[in-house]
Parts: sequence; structure tokens; C-alpha cells
Amino acid sequence: MIRHPSFKTEPWCVREAPLDLDVLAQSESLFALSNGHLGMRGNLDEGEPHGLPGTYLNSVYELRPLPSAEPAYGSPEVGQTIINVTNGKIIRLLVDDELFDVRQGELISHERLLDLRTGLLHRSVEWRSPAGGHVALRSTRLVSLTQRAVAAISWEVTAVGRSVGIVVESELVANEELPPADPDPRSAPMLANVLDALEHRAGPDGEALLMHTVRRSGIRLGAAMVHDVEAPQPPVFRLETSDDVAQATIISRLDPGQTLRVVKYLAYGWSTELSQPALRDQVHGALALARHTGWHQLCDDQRRSLDAFWSHADVSVAGDAEVQQAVRLSLFHLLQAAVRAEGQPIPAKGLTGPGYEGHTFWDTEVYVLPVLTSTFPQPVRDALEWRKSTLPTARARASLLGLAGAAFPWRTIAGQESSGYWPAGTAAFHVNAGIALSAVRYVRATGDMDFERKVGLELLVETARMWRSLGHHDKNGRFRIDGVTGPDEYGAIADNNLYTNLMAQQNLRQAAEAVGRHPGWAAALHVTNEETAAWLDAARAMVIPYDETLEIHLQSEGYTEHAVWDFEHTKPEQYPLFLHFPYFDLYRKQVVKQADLVLAMYQVSDAFTEEQKARNFDYYERLNVRDSSLSASAQGIIAAELGHLDLAYAYLYESAMIDLADVQHDTRNGLHLAALAGSWMILVAGFGGLRLESEVLSFAPRLPPALSALTFNLLHRGRHLRVTVLSTSARYELVDGDPLALRHHGTPTEVFRERPVELPTPPAPQRPRPTQPPGRAPAVPRSGHAGWGGD
Amino acid sequence: MIRHPSFKTEPWCVREAPLDLDVLAQSESLFALSNGHLGMRGNLDEGEPHGLPGTYLNSVYELRPLPSAEPAYGSPEVGQTIINVTNGKIIRLLVDDELFDVRQGELISHERLLDLRTGLLHRSVEWRSPAGGHVALRSTRLVSLTQRAVAAISWEVTAVGRSVGIVVESELVANEELPPADPDPRSAPMLANVLDALEHRAGPDGEALLMHTVRRSGIRLGAAMVHDVEAPQPPVFRLETSDDVAQATIISRLDPGQTLRVVKYLAYGWSTELSQPALRDQVHGALALARHTGWHQLCDDQRRSLDAFWSHADVSVAGDAEVQQAVRLSLFHLLQAAVRAEGQPIPAKGLTGPGYEGHTFWDTEVYVLPVLTSTFPQPVRDALEWRKSTLPTARARASLLGLAGAAFPWRTIAGQESSGYWPAGTAAFHVNAGIALSAVRYVRATGDMDFERKVGLELLVETARMWRSLGHHDKNGRFRIDGVTGPDEYGAIADNNLYTNLMAQQNLRQAAEAVGRHPGWAAALHVTNEETAAWLDAARAMVIPYDETLEIHLQSEGYTEHAVWDFEHTKPEQYPLFLHFPYFDLYRKQVVKQADLVLAMYQVSDAFTEEQKARNFDYYERLNVRDSSLSASAQGIIAAELGHLDLAYAYLYESAMIDLADVQHDTRNGLHLAALAGSWMILVAGFGGLRLESEVLSFAPRLPPALSALTFNLLHRGRHLRVTVLSTSARYELVDGDPLALRHHGTPTEVFRERPVELPTPPAPQRPRPTQPPGRAPAVPRSGHAGWGGD
Repeated sequence: MIRHPSFKTEPWCVREAPLDLDVLAQSESLFALSNGHLGMRGNLDEGEPHGLPGTYLNSVYELRPLPSAEPAYGSPEVGQTIINVTNGKIIRLLVDDELFDVRQGELISHERLLDLRTGLLHRSVEWRSPAGGHVALRSTRLVSLTQRAVAAISWEVTAVGRSVGIVVESELVANEELPPADPDPRSAPMLANVLDALEHRAGPDGEALLMHTVRRSGIRLGAAMVHDVEAPQPPVFRLETSDDVAQATIISRLDPGQTLRVVKYLAYGWSTELSQPALRDQVHGALALARHTGWHQLCDDQRRSLDAFWSHADVSVAGDAEVQQAVRLSLFHLLQAAVRAEGQPIPAKGLTGPGYEGHTFWDTEVYVLPVLTSTFPQPVRDALEWRKSTLPTARARASLLGLAGAAFPWRTIAGQESSGYWPAGTAAFHVNAGIALSAVRYVRATGDMDFERKVGLELLVETARMWRSLGHHDKNGRFRIDGVTGPDEYGAIADNNLYTNLMAQQNLRQAAEAVGRHPGWAAALHVTNEETAAWLDAARAMVIPYDETLEIHLQSEGYTEHAVWDFEHTKPEQYPLFLHFPYFDLYRKQVVKQADLVLAMYQVSDAFTEEQKARNFDYYERLNVRDSSLSASAQGIIAAELGHLDLAYAYLYESAMIDLADVQHDTRNGLHLAALAGSWMILVAGFGGLRLESEVLSFAPRLPPALSALTFNLLHRGRHLRVTVLSTSARYELVDGDPLALRHHGTPTEVFRERPVELPTPPAPQRPRPTQPPGRAPAVPRSGHAGWGGD
Repeated sequence: MIRHPSFKTEPWCVREAPLDLDVLAQSESLFALSNGHLGMRGNLDEGEPHGLPGTYLNSVYELRPLPSAEPAYGSPEVGQTIINVTNGKIIRLLVDDELFDVRQGELISHERLLDLRTGLLHRSVEWRSPAGGHVALRSTRLVSLTQRAVAAISWEVTAVGRSVGIVVESELVANEELPPADPDPRSAPMLANVLDALEHRAGPDGEALLMHTVRRSGIRLGAAMVHDVEAPQPPVFRLETSDDVAQATIISRLDPGQTLRVVKYLAYGWSTELSQPALRDQVHGALALARHTGWHQLCDDQRRSLDAFWSHADVSVAGDAEVQQAVRLSLFHLLQAAVRAEGQPIPAKGLTGPGYEGHTFWDTEVYVLPVLTSTFPQPVRDALEWRKSTLPTARARASLLGLAGAAFPWRTIAGQESSGYWPAGTAAFHVNAGIALSAVRYVRATGDMDFERKVGLELLVETARMWRSLGHHDKNGRFRIDGVTGPDEYGAIADNNLYTNLMAQQNLRQAAEAVGRHPGWAAALHVTNEETAAWLDAARAMVIPYDETLEIHLQSEGYTEHAVWDFEHTKPEQYPLFLHFPYFDLYRKQVVKQADLVLAMYQVSDAFTEEQKARNFDYYERLNVRDSSLSASAQGIIAAELGHLDLAYAYLYESAMIDLADVQHDTRNGLHLAALAGSWMILVAGFGGLRLESEVLSFAPRLPPALSALTFNLLHRGRHLRVTVLSTSARYELVDGDPLALRHHGTPTEVFRERPVELPTPPAPQRPRPTQPPGRAPAVPRSGHAGWGGD
């Protein structure tokens, strides 16, 4: 879509001009505003046309049956699905008696602009009605980063050329009609009409409130609005409420050049516990505070929050304006997804769309949290505290599966397993190691020992217990983990998946180390010396599958014995393969949906020699079709490590453009947060070579030829470090904090404030560029206007 | 249930006296009458109480959605489910004004008797109504083996002691109310109210007809009835019909000792093609012919059919009256399931109940057809012709899966895959080899070259093509079949399942041999020399997984590396395991639901040395929990072959009692035809040692100590052979046909008419008795009144 004439490449914003209705749903995802608690898709103010209307509250979901043709023990029968809550974005306009609609009359100009520094979504329109009424509209929308229950819209209309009668209808609408379900399995079964009315009221100061209960989940929610109106003459203002609609009507007459301005304040709340009056008061109070704060102050607060974020999170890329824009957009959406999630999960699509039913998966911990760990750590602690809060459910799930410890769900909103297909759900135990590693990295980067004691330790212990019970020693004393599914979803139920085994090994060891650091806290979890010894034994005996003939690691035991997928006879329109071939056939052949073993080479970097990495990468590159948006980032990082800088750059481009170019053709259902995080990972872990294998940061920077410089910021144990990678050198600058030891291409060094260190970068090793399956090589379109070859 | 005081052990019948309502549903399955086209459960004449009302027409099914929480390419979305068609069995009685109900008044006596020689189900009842009306009832029911559309009931009531007013209501009822669904996943999702009325009419001679369409499948069906009434005085007779009910009312008064007798003739028909008038005429004509034939002639014809069957199918067992009864009951139900199926499949439960949705599986070819091949071959040809008729569907399925040739469904009624869980459905490709082998055995046993040319060849060729495309050569030139599921449903999606590979190897070779015998017919199927050479190459290079350390074959690659199931901590009430543990855990451990590798040792006997068989059997016996009724027979055969005669006998007992003792606790949903066939297999292939590896029959008879003699009959290439196994010798008697060469314990001999050969049997080898998982050893309850230890 971008790489589309309507979208402009600018460093600090995403701008669309003119409006392009063909990509409306995609632009609604890109222009979504969120604070992690409340999310609003970038729907037009007037509600229609829309691609997909969407307003979301984190963890407000409905239950749905998970049907199966042949029910089996242990399969969850009920799933959780995010719902579209009460829509407060709607502000409709009548000019004289004609409804403003971009499809009617003459749309003279239309521009939308998402400003990444202010966090505001602007829109300006000039429109002439079929009857000739001529107006200019401007609106600015925010979802507050400082008041998490609050959104606000500043909306104004100006008469142009002649006098016009103006009617504004500003609404809250529950149980909106939704477009028909998308047949793509990656989309959600959207649930409509699940809100049962509890209460509607219009207050004395013009505020209106709707309260509902989500039918089966029983979650209560409330939404409220209030308006400040400025008009040349006192306007007529009427307010009506009913079960599912609250409607404010503002009537005015504007002479040419006169403007009617409305500021609409919105507040939301939900609870599974609060009484209806308590919840009502919470929403009402949030609304009152927002109005009291006022529009300008809300905007100032927004800007201040973002200034703080960018000061230690910004990445600047010299030499590629598209990547520059894309990586900032990525960081902006990561911030939006996480900043105020506070005790709730970060879904795979944040709050930008209903894709994947609003579930959180392993990629939050493995892709999203590492970026935040180094740039904005507070939400990482929040997200892992949320995981910890679901431990009772995860323990029950482990017990149901005959395991010790905790088994976290493959996909969930509130903690219960919501996957209805166990070979790619329950069997993907690696999610547990991803969570554990995420906690370890957070502690490494922040030194937050309070977190380690209260949260990290228990996550490590309970996952280590699970791994110890999931695997077993064979007759030769080797510790095996059989019948599980790794990250690659074109394989399943395999023995000794390398990624899983290495991650489990690390999980077991890190759990034992954490127990050693906090013996008292560990004792409270009933950890004994026998238990930690058993973890370490299992870790030491872990099977690492390796093909001695090919001298490569195996994705899982027996992998290289399998038939190689017939790439030659696979047509371009048959990608993604899972929409055109049965899992039966994909699972049994050598074909990779997404980095699995290659991801292991990043996540457990020191388990491989450089030559092993090179041979492995070469082998698995030939098999990886990248039908998942999670793949390119790991491939890019390893490509960079091995010196394939152009290839790494191509993966960077693909990952960064995942939504701007709609690479996977499903941006309409929401953004791909993990892939967006992946673009940062390729820049920082790939071209910067950042590894966080201990408390000491390690870098191995190397710039791809396409870039002239790369600068990124990192927070590490109270320091703020800025790294600039140039063609033949790298500069380390300690912006704030105590002196910092680090490694540059293996060499230890130390950085002090106001004394930047500049070190030469060794030339990249020369290796033949690995090849990808036919038609599946990543491409950097130097024209800047094309995407990807596949489906 | 039997091994229950109400049930008597008699050699040629199953008798229940008195009535036991606690096992009503099970007895309905045991007392079911069928001819393979029309089936009626043994419901009481008066319809209520019932366990499960059931009247079935082979291949009259409804479609149902196969839901999935996460839809995937290639998964069938629609399944087929057998339905309960129009019930013509109902004859209600009012004595004075009180409805006869065994639960009301006084049931003075009640006996039901299924006569295996006459094929009649008798019932005699003496009952006193709450008001004191005293009657004797007798009924006899048949489903005709000679007129496949026809059933008939002779029903009479006699006044006892005093005069009574009698009203008889004899009915056809469509869309009967069904009991609530059974939560056991082995039962069916019963579909009710799926018959849309087409037509109802009452004819001039008292016949009544109902025609319906099955709602979604569109199958048309008709049912008709007519009555002959004998009474002391001319009775009142009224007939009424409506959409779903046809009701004949007969009113009479009986003095003590007087009898009212009704013969009810029933005819059924169905079609997907015939017009409504044509189908009506077919049903009407069948009814007219039945009435013209008359009750006594129908009974005589039934007896004659069964005499012919028993003359060459009977097995007599001296020394165990229970097994004697059970094996005759088994043969009777196999006959009933197959005899007039004629171009339709033989379902796993015949037409005795709705279990497994009325689907046919691999076990029809692998368990049921081999028994009929040696005793009553015509239905085998019919059943394989039905498979051939589904080849277009099977080719389309193969193509969808990216395979050549044909991929037959795991479960189906009309040929379309109806399994909604692919790891235990689509992945179980061995069904194809079972079909092919069944055709080969039929030809070996009958010499029916016409069949081989027209049916067998194409089945072999299309399955060989499938195998060739399913496997591949690895870098060492070995032919592998990866990611498939063998018979053992506690394993799935494994590489090189031994059973599958051996069966595929045999399939490939037998296809090449058949092509060699019929080059012209093969050319019409476009078979080339290159193609058969490729089959033979693949067969020769087939991977046969073997553990060199343990010196045993592997159920699949890597099998012995997996953790052994924790049998010690599995409680008796946790069997069957699949109802208490997730497939995830079962699949990844060494635990066997049903004979897999052990079945291979029977089906592809010469692929193993005797010592390998002994070691394999010992190893896999320890893992096999027999949660499937398909297991005991293969274990019994191999136990007998290896000299474990007591163990084989215990498996015989379990297999034979599967339904009489309700071993699996689901006889209510229908009989386990394959297990019933298995009892014959243990007797004939186990204690008789019959193998049919070539045209020459081979025997290795050995009698278990519990039996004093075993006699069985076989048909082979136009001969009728009778074999009697005694303690130290065996007698071969050619009842009919040309001289027959055979092998006795490896020694060739020849048998001539009227010159029986008696040969000594060598003593059984002495080996330690293999053990089973704790609590899972088969038991022969010498008390004769207990079943099995598990769930």
C-alpha cells in the first residue's frame, strides 16, 4: 500500500494524500492510535466508509466455542476473542441537509498525517457537497499516553465561499455492524452484537455514558463522552441516549470563514470485579479529569511522553529514507502497544485490529520485549508481571498435560489456552523458554533485582520444572524432548527440535542460576538442591541434533532425511503455502515457514561456532519460504553476523515494510508488531551486532553498503548509550550514567560520559551469498515502489 | 452384560431371560437383524423403553459440518453420518385401555432368543396389566437375507384367564425422537429430524407408505408396510397416514385362549437417482412380493440361506461353550453385515448401531473381509467393487494431497473423507494397502481372474501409484515414507512406520505382479514398464526400521528412544487412555493402543524371522494397553504362532466376548465387527495357523490346553476344506472339490475327497510368557462371569 503514490516518505510522520479508499482497511491499521489499554483504528471521523471499524480495550474479550469434529481430551473447548467495543470516534457532519461522505460530492483535498513526535493523528479535508455546500474540515485525534482511559478529538468545520447550515452528530455506538468475516484463517472470527446493555445516561453537563456487559465473558465496560463546543453563535446542543447509542447533536450556521470547533473527550473503563456504580464512577471520573486537563494540555503531555521516549529509543538511518520512516513508525507502534498495558498482555497486533483474535503469542516475549528492554523497560516489567499473574492457569494447564511446573498458553488473552489445534498450539512448548529468557534479559539490562526476586525467579523455576518433566533421559543418558513443535509452523510434533532443546537448556541453567542468587525466595517456591541439580543434569545431557555428514545442525531429529519441498513446481500464487497445501504434506518435508534453527543461532548464539552458523544458515536459507512475518528479522540478524550485509539489508527492508507495504496481505487486520520489532532487531542486533548474553553489552557493528550511517540509543543498567555505526568504524557515546564496559567485535572497552570512543570495524568475512527458494529471495526495490514476489 | 445372569450360553442361539432393562441398549445391538442393506436394532416391538431406537439403510446418511477451531487447507468441511430411518418395527398393544409396557403392570415372563440357524429373533412375554388384563405375546422378527428390501414380523397376542379388549397399533414412524447424545467420542453425533416428508399414502389393500428426503444429502427413501391379520372374529382395521406416521389400528376382543395374529411386512428403498414415482414403485413392489411370498416361505428361505452359510463357514469349538457361542454369533453378524451390502460399504458396526457415524474404516478390509474371503466370498467381491466405485473420489483426494494415484478415505460412507482430525485420519495411509491386500487375498482364495482384471488390478495400480508418490529416496537411496500414522492410534505422524512401510512394499510388489499378469488391462490404465520398475525399486529400497541394540524392529523411526509410558502410575479407571490423557502426551511416548508392529508380523509374516517375531512380540506386549478392540486378534495370532497358547487363548476369549461382555463399554452403539472377525482369526489363523501368502494354503495348527478340539471350514479355489485340530494332531478333510495341495507346519501335503489326512502337530516352542502393562493382561475368567480389568 505504501510504496503507493498516496503515501509519502518522511522521517517523522506517515502522510496520506489524497485519500485512497482501496487501502482503507490497511491505512486504518497504520493510523491506529493506542496506549496499550485503549486502542482506536484510524477510522474516518464520520464512521463510513470503513475498512474495519475498531475500538479495543485490552483484555475485553468474548468467549467463543472452539469446535472440533473429533473432540479430544485436553483440547480447550472455549476460546477468547477480542471484541470491538463502544465506538466513540464517530463525528458525523451534515452540510445543509447533506451528509458528509467522501464518496459523495467533490472531495477537493484529503490528507491524513500521523505525527510520530506528537502522537497525534491529523486530518484535513476540503469538500463540496452535491448541492454545492463547501466546507473545510480539520480533525486531530489522540489516545492519551498519560491518561490511559482517555481519548480526545479536536474537530472543526469552516464554511468556505458561502453560508451553510451545519449539524454535527457526535456519538457513542455499541454493537456496531461489522463487515462480513474474512476467509483468511489469520483473521479473526469477528463477534458482533455481544454487548448487552446495562445502563445509558445523559448527565447535567452534557456528558453521556453507555455501560454494557460482554455476553458470555461477563466483562463489564463503560464508555463516556463530553463535548466542548466553540461556535460563532451559541449553537443548539441536544443529547439523547439509548441502550446502544448516545448521540450529541450540535446545530449551527456558519458564514464563510466561520468555524465551528468541537473537542470531544472520551473515557473508557472495564472490569470483571467492580460493581456497576464503581465502574461508572471510574469512567465518569476519567472523563471529568480529561476535560479538566483540556485539549491543549493533553497534547502537551502527549508530546512530552514521546520526547522522553525518542530521546532514548530513536534510531536514525542515513541513506534510506524509507527504512528511516519505517523503523520510527515501528518504534512508535511498539510504544503504543505497550506503554499503558499495565498488567494486561501485549497482543500480536497490539490494539490495531482484530487479527489473531487479539491474542498474545510467544512473539511478544521473543520479538517485542527485547526492543523495549533496551529502550523503554518499564512495560517489559509490566508484561512479565502479567505473565506471572497467569501462573495459576499455566500450572493447571501443565497438570492437565501431565507436566510439572507451568505450561503457558500458545495463544490467549486472559491466560487460558485458546488454541484449538494442538500440533501448532499446545505442542509449541518453546513459548515457555521465550518467557523465561525475556525475564533474564530484562534483569540483565536493568539490574532490577526486585523484579528478579518477585517475578523472574518464579517464571524461571516454573518453566524449568516444566522442561524437566517434559523431557526424559534415554538409555544412553541423553536428555530428549520428543513430540513437540518448534517455531517453524511447517513442521510439528518432532523429536528434539533444536530451537526448543537449546532454549530449554538455557532455561534450565538460568533457573538454577537465579535460584543460586535468591536462595531464600527459591526456598519459598520449594526448590531444593536436588531439583536444581536435576535441572543442570538435564541441561548438560540435552540432545543437540547434528548431521555429521552434512555438518549442519538438524532442525529436529531426522530432518535432513525428509524430502525437500518441490520448490520448482510451486507456483508464485501458491504462497503462503499453508493456504494451498495441507499441513500433512508441509510437516513431512523440508520446507521452513519461518526461522527456527536460524532463530536459535541468534537466541542461543554461543551454542554454535561461526562455521557451523555459516553452514547452517546456508542450508536452511534454501528451505525458508518466509510465509511468516516473524522470519525475516532472525534471518537478517544472522546474515549480518555472517557478513552477508546486502542480504541482511534486504531482510531489514522486508521486515520494516511489513505493514507499510502490506507484505503479508493482511495488514487490514492489524499491524505485525513482532515484524516491526524485527526491523529494530536487524538494525541493532544485526548491523549493530548487539548481544546481551551477560550483563556486559557486546557489539559487532558493520554497516551495509546501502547505508551511510546508523545511530541507535540503548538503555542499560541506568546508562544511556548512543552507538553510531559508520562504514569503517563505530562510535560509542555514553549520554548518561556511570562508565560502561562493553565489547566491540570481541574486544573489551569502556565508555565514559563526554568521552565517546570510536573504534574501527573489521571487514566482513567473504562468503558466497546463500540462496533462497526460487522466487522467495528478499528484494530491496530500489525504485522504492514494489514489495515482495509472493502471494 | 452377557456373563450376566439373564444371558444363557447355548451353542446356536443367544437367549435372554428374563428381560434386563439395565443392558437394554447393549442387547439391542446383539439382537440386531440385518442383511447388509437393511438393519434393525433389537428394539422391543412396542418401541419403548428403548436404549437407542435404530433402523438403518446402508448408505442412507446425512451431511454434517465438520467444524474446526482453526480451519486448514485440505480438511474436509462436511462429514457423513448414518441416520435412523423410518421405524417400521413398532407394534403397540393396548389391553383393554392400558398400554402394554414392560415397566408397568406385572411382567410374568420375558424371553428373547436370537436363533443363529434360522436368522429369526423370537420374543415371548407373559404380562398382566395394572388392571389385571392377562395376555401372552409372541413375536418373531426377520430381516430377509433373500429379499434385501424386506423385513417381516409375526406378532400374536393370546388372552389368558379372562376376556380382554385388544387394540394393536402398528406403525411406520419417521423422525423418531432420539435419546440425548452420548459424550463418548466413539459414539456418533446423532442427527434427528433430518427427514423431510415427500409423500404419505394409504393403499387399497391396507398398505401404507411414507416417503422422505434426507435434508442435506438429498437422498430419497421410502418405507411401506402391510398387514395380514388372523383373529377369532373379523377385527376392525383402520389405516391413517400423515407426513411422519403411518398407523394401522386393529381392534378385537379375545376370549381366554383366543389369539390375534398379525404378520407385518415391511419394505424399504432409497436412491439418489430414481424419481419419486420410480422409488415408490420399487418399495411398493418389494412389499407386494414379500406379502406374496408369505411369512412361512420367508422363514424357509432364511433358513436355507443360513444352512448354506453354516455348511462352509461353521467353526466348532470343543471345550469352551462360551467361545463356541461367541464365534458363531460373530460369524452370524459378519454374514448379516455383508451378505446383501451389494455395492455399498460394510460399516465398522454393520447396521447394528450408530457408532462411528456408520462409517467404514480400514478394518473392514483388514479384519472383516479375510474371514469372508475364506468362508463366503461373494460379499468380498461386492465390497471391493464398492471401493473401486469410489476411485474417482479417492483420486481427487490424492490430487488434493499432492499425490498420484488414489488415496482412500480414513472413514466414510459414500467415499468422501469424513475424518475431521487429520493426524489420525488422512495421515493413516495404510488403509490403502489394506484394501490392496484384501483384493490380492480374495484372488488367491477364489482364483477370480475376472475380478482381478476388472477390479483388483486398478485398486493395486492406483494404490501403488499413491505409495510411490508418498515416499521418496533419501541421499543413501533408501525409500522413506515420512510423517504418516500407522494402525496404533497412540502414535501419529511418524517417519517410517514399520507396518505402513511393509504393507506399502507388498502393495508395490503385488501391483507390479498383477500388471505382469494382465498387461493389456494394465496398459488401459496407462501403466508403463518404467512405472512398474519404479514401484519395484521403491519396494526394494524400503526402509525397515530396526534397533540394532535391542535387536527388535521399531514401530517407527526413533520409537525406542521415546519415554516409556508411566504405566505404574496410571490408574485402572484411566483406561482407555485417550479419554484421560491428551494425544500430545500419548503420541510422544512408548505406549501402544492397538497392535501395529504385531499386526505387521501377521500381515507380512515373511518379513520377520521367528526369533525377531519373538523378541518384537515380547517388547511390544509390554507397551500395548489394548484400548482398541482391533488389537487382541493380532496379538492372539502372533502369540499362537510363537507358542504362547494360553496367552493366545486369553486374547481369543477377549475378542470373542467383545460385545457379549461389552468389553469396551460401547456395545450400546453397535457391535465391533472387526473384533468379532478377530475371534475367527485367532481360531483359524492362530490355532489353525492358516496363512494365505500364496495360492497354497498353509497351516500350523496347535490347540491350546483349554480346548479339546477345534473344527473349521474353509472355501479355497472351489474346494471346501474342513480342518480339525486336536491336541497332538490335525485332520484335513476335503468335503468338496478337486484335490488340494497345502502345507502343514511347513510340510507339503495333498488332500483328496473322502481321504482325510491326519498329521501330528509338533510341540509348541517353550518361551517365557510375555507380560503386558500392569492390569492390562487379558484374562480368561474361568468363573465365566467377568470381563476385563480396565475401564
